[in-house]
Amino acid sequence: MDTAAELVDALVEGNRRALARAITHVEADSAIGREVLRLIYPRTGRAQTIGITGSAGAGKSTLVGALARAERERGRTIGIVAVDPSSPFSHGAILGDRIRMQDLTSDPGVFLRSMASRGNLGGLSETATGVVDLMDAFGHDIVLIETVGAGQDEVEVATTAQTTVLVANPGAGDEVQSMKAGLMEIAQIMVVNKADLAGADTAVAQLRALLAIANVGAWSPPILKTIAKTNEGISELVDAIDEHQAHTRSDEHAAAERERHVRGQIIALARAALHREALEAAETTGALDTLVEEVASRQRDPRSAALELLDSLQATWAASRSSTP
Amino acid sequence: MDTAAELVDALVEGNRRALARAITHVEADSAIGREVLRLIYPRTGRAQTIGITGSAGAGKSTLVGALARAERERGRTIGIVAVDPSSPFSHGAILGDRIRMQDLTSDPGVFLRSMASRGNLGGLSETATGVVDLMDAFGHDIVLIETVGAGQDEVEVATTAQTTVLVANPGAGDEVQSMKAGLMEIAQIMVVNKADLAGADTAVAQLRALLAIANVGAWSPPILKTIAKTNEGISELVDAIDEHQAHTRSDEHAAAERERHVRGQIIALARAALHREALEAAETTGALDTLVEEVASRQRDPRSAALELLDSLQATWAASRSSTP
Repeated sequence: MDTAAELVDALVEGNRRALARAITHVEADSAIGREVLRLIYPRTGRAQTIGITGSAGAGKSTLVGALARAERERGRTIGIVAVDPSSPFSHGAILGDRIRMQDLTSDPGVFLRSMASRGNLGGLSETATGVVDLMDAFGHDIVLIETVGAGQDEVEVATTAQTTVLVANPGAGDEVQSMKAGLMEIAQIMVVNKADLAGADTAVAQLRALLAIANVGAWSPPILKTIAKTNEGISELVDAIDEHQAHTRSDEHAAAERERHVRGQIIALARAALHREALEAAETTGALDTLVEEVASRQRDPRSAALELLDSLQATWAASRSSTP
Repeated sequence: MDTAAELVDALVEGNRRALARAITHVEADSAIGREVLRLIYPRTGRAQTIGITGSAGAGKSTLVGALARAERERGRTIGIVAVDPSSPFSHGAILGDRIRMQDLTSDPGVFLRSMASRGNLGGLSETATGVVDLMDAFGHDIVLIETVGAGQDEVEVATTAQTTVLVANPGAGDEVQSMKAGLMEIAQIMVVNKADLAGADTAVAQLRALLAIANVGAWSPPILKTIAKTNEGISELVDAIDEHQAHTRSDEHAAAERERHVRGQIIALARAALHREALEAAETTGALDTLVEEVASRQRDPRSAALELLDSLQATWAASRSSTP
């Protein structure tokens, strides 16, 4: 299994070791990893891809565990991509969460992979969507992407899925109120988890009010209450996901849904690549260091320095374009 | 007060109406606004700028109110920039928060301005740092920037301040554990608010463990417990902020601190401008639409489409450079 083609052949035949190795290549952004992704893309699109996002403390990990078990009970195989913060300390948290998922990891119908989010340098969207494609091509019926954080990067990753589930916590009324309007428009299903806590109905009412003024398309996102710990509402969540998936694959809406999904993916991936290239160029050319010095000595204001930096990046890119015929 | 120069003259003399009008110009990104920012920059740098960030539900607004009152008791004037989510619905939340601050808004030593974060299109960092500069030049002793959300944009805004305070909630052990390692490295003071709740000591211990492995410089961030509602620990927080400010202005550390601060500002501003230009260019050229179609029809994979989009943006920029002599 050393070449990309060999890896792909083994992977699509359901070889778990090949899947694991392909994921490692994609995470390392190796030449083989990129080739694997190119080769498998035509084999993707069969799985239901589901992104789970929301604030920390909303019980996303427990919900993902309950959801995975419910999908297994319906006879579906499942891949789980858990995007964890890059903190080395949080490794403990990850292990703690995963221990609650131990019954799942010993199930051959489940493939779980944790992935560090590695700060803000981009790359997260690229790696995570790649791993989702690998799990899809492997033949999983469902691919779940769970993100621990609620930073822009993590939210963006969850929205590269076909169905994005936004999980809120009834305890924090602030939380629902402080959700960005944008968030409401990227989620296809809203869940108020820990619905046995006080404030659940208020949270539902608040979400409903937000939805009423949000700019949603042909699909009107349902708002569900769950208690993931005791599996309450989980079966209804699976039904809602299936309904949204049926919507995205219906004759009437498939084209528009696919376009929405693809547009989001391309923008997320382009943004990540742009950040990476810009930071690399700024470091290589030394342009940033000069500007920092000028602003620090008050010869220049930070806004004009930022525009100058951008200008010098564009000049670098223009020069590299004209030098490559 | 119609020209930029007139606005600046009135503003630096302490005219509140001039400050309000200048802020409106900066928010609208008008030519006058940009000129005002350029003119006042040499007059900035006197205020203590303090960013308050952390997850929703950590009680940041209450903490900002308590902090502002404590600073006023020490005889200092204060400007507050509250960055709120762009959700129209959250307007209620903003008003609710601000009602708790009513005693402050009737105080002539306080100037409060709320600002919408307007989604992910960039611009937030540019506007917020501009408003901070205006409040600084106006003569406020302290300028506080509070961000409601914990998205990347909001965090970035808070870190453009000289002293960034990270507020955590003891209730959510997950929350501390899921904090990005990067977050630890950008905060100069850690606060566990709502310290009367169970779990506060655990949260402090977790933060301490995270800090022990974080890559901090000459300043070792203190970890404080507060109960903002009852003002407990607030005086100690003001002391800690003053200590950090003294550190940033000390002979030994001023140069390095100023460089760190300026570098963060330039990167945040350049990133925002880059996003805006890239999205504008993608829409204008129609490059994105073509790529969406190709990926939606599976002629192309999203990763290569993203790189192609980036390439076409760079080509557009290169062409616009060569056409302007």
